[in-house]
Amino acid sequence: MIRRLAIIGVGLIGGSLALSLRRNAAVEEVVGCGRSAANLERARALGVIDHGCHDPAEAVQGADLVVICVPLRAMRGVLAALEGAVEPGTVVTDAGSVKGSVIEDARAVFGTPPAWLVPGHPIAGTENSGVEAAFAELYDGRRVILTPTAENPEDAVERVSALWQAAGAQVVCMEADHHDEVLAATSHLPHALAYALVDALASWDDRQEIFEYAAGGFRDFTRIASSDPAMWRDICTANRAHLVAALRRYQEDLGRLTEALAAGDDDQVLRVFENAQEARAGFLRLLEGRS
Amino acid sequence: MIRRLAIIGVGLIGGSLALSLRRNAAVEEVVGCGRSAANLERARALGVIDHGCHDPAEAVQGADLVVICVPLRAMRGVLAALEGAVEPGTVVTDAGSVKGSVIEDARAVFGTPPAWLVPGHPIAGTENSGVEAAFAELYDGRRVILTPTAENPEDAVERVSALWQAAGAQVVCMEADHHDEVLAATSHLPHALAYALVDALASWDDRQEIFEYAAGGFRDFTRIASSDPAMWRDICTANRAHLVAALRRYQEDLGRLTEALAAGDDDQVLRVFENAQEARAGFLRLLEGRS
Repeated sequence: MIRRLAIIGVGLIGGSLALSLRRNAAVEEVVGCGRSAANLERARALGVIDHGCHDPAEAVQGADLVVICVPLRAMRGVLAALEGAVEPGTVVTDAGSVKGSVIEDARAVFGTPPAWLVPGHPIAGTENSGVEAAFAELYDGRRVILTPTAENPEDAVERVSALWQAAGAQVVCMEADHHDEVLAATSHLPHALAYALVDALASWDDRQEIFEYAAGGFRDFTRIASSDPAMWRDICTANRAHLVAALRRYQEDLGRLTEALAAGDDDQVLRVFENAQEARAGFLRLLEGRS
Repeated sequence: MIRRLAIIGVGLIGGSLALSLRRNAAVEEVVGCGRSAANLERARALGVIDHGCHDPAEAVQGADLVVICVPLRAMRGVLAALEGAVEPGTVVTDAGSVKGSVIEDARAVFGTPPAWLVPGHPIAGTENSGVEAAFAELYDGRRVILTPTAENPEDAVERVSALWQAAGAQVVCMEADHHDEVLAATSHLPHALAYALVDALASWDDRQEIFEYAAGGFRDFTRIASSDPAMWRDICTANRAHLVAALRRYQEDLGRLTEALAAGDDDQVLRVFENAQEARAGFLRLLEGRS
């Protein structure tokens, strides 16, 4: 049981965490921290937090666990605000989609990443943002990746693991750089491709007609292009090297498919499609096996 | 009211058409035609067809309307089987995803496309195939594009329009080549991108982990890569010129985004993401306004 949880940045990710912990009776008190009084008031009205404040240093007082759920661009500022404010016994984690950049932020603020900061990333979300979009089931059966630093005591990692497990998630640990490489492929690359596709089609001559005759497949394929642009600019630029490598590698594969199609190598086109269908069937089995 | 409808190729598309017409009491009798006796028996058991046969020429006898719902690669063979079998007063349409190739097939078989053949394309589907996947709501509020030839009498076009409207769809007419260009962008290109992405990731070193840590966004983004590979090989190769052009144009756009990201031009990355999010919001408004 968590006695007092502080959530810095009360939106979809932090709000859903609070709701899922409450649902599972795993938390007594939730303190929310954010810049907007209106948003904190909405979070209180929605039963997400018990009370709110604007100063991260104030929010963490007396908290046993703190989760930083702000956009990556705000991470360094929040860490700076926490300097000297984190009491012994308090453990802090974050929910940033890129882990190398968070550890870099911690180094920039503290020199050495502090022992109390266990970097983490819940692999869950929707294209919607804000505390109104939060829901208690967001983490059910989902993965949370922790990327502990050399400074983290085992006990701190275990407490963050227990937090996410209490929210319904499954926790694994890996190196931060490896996390960033894997997520570049499965999350950041598809987002970049979807944004690029919708942007491209919107610039083509018959854009009105193109969208007019698009159907369900297109809607699903481009759903992630409705995600918050500034948040995803942050994620993509924070994971620049891995994402650029993934984009270039994908472009080579797509170029080969295009040339096979252009050259009439229809057997090669079929091989790519068959291989993809089979791989996706395996992915769906993985997902099913997990839930 | 359609007295007798013949469906050649009883799968998701033809089966859903029969179910929606029955739901709306718009058809008296449905004859199904296919090669597999087992599939026809399933279609009968599911209430999709009243009786079945294996020969297209037999299926169209006494039918007022005929819908050819076979894969594009089987289209020419079906048209050849109908030579001399279509009675005066019978109108035939098809549901092929590419219209230029169907008209080309008709030219190859008949010289001039027959007056009774009105090419069409319902813009609806799911990643599932087969008559078991058919459902009565598939065409509700969806678009059907007809691409009449110079040979079609107005009356024939109107009867095919009425058929699809009775199934719940909205019908528009356009040139076959324009249809193929627009669908290359909204349907064939996204399918090729999704297949290419899953195929690419499946070949990367850490493939198991990549799929292990993929989430909902990835599942939706790649849903269309679960579509039937041979069917999509047919579609992509039947629309080769337009799809290759769309793929190359997309690759240029994606290349520009990649280079902006690599060069640290984060404002340009944000502009692409913002433009895409805005364009997709417009697309969703279009979809809502329609239903």
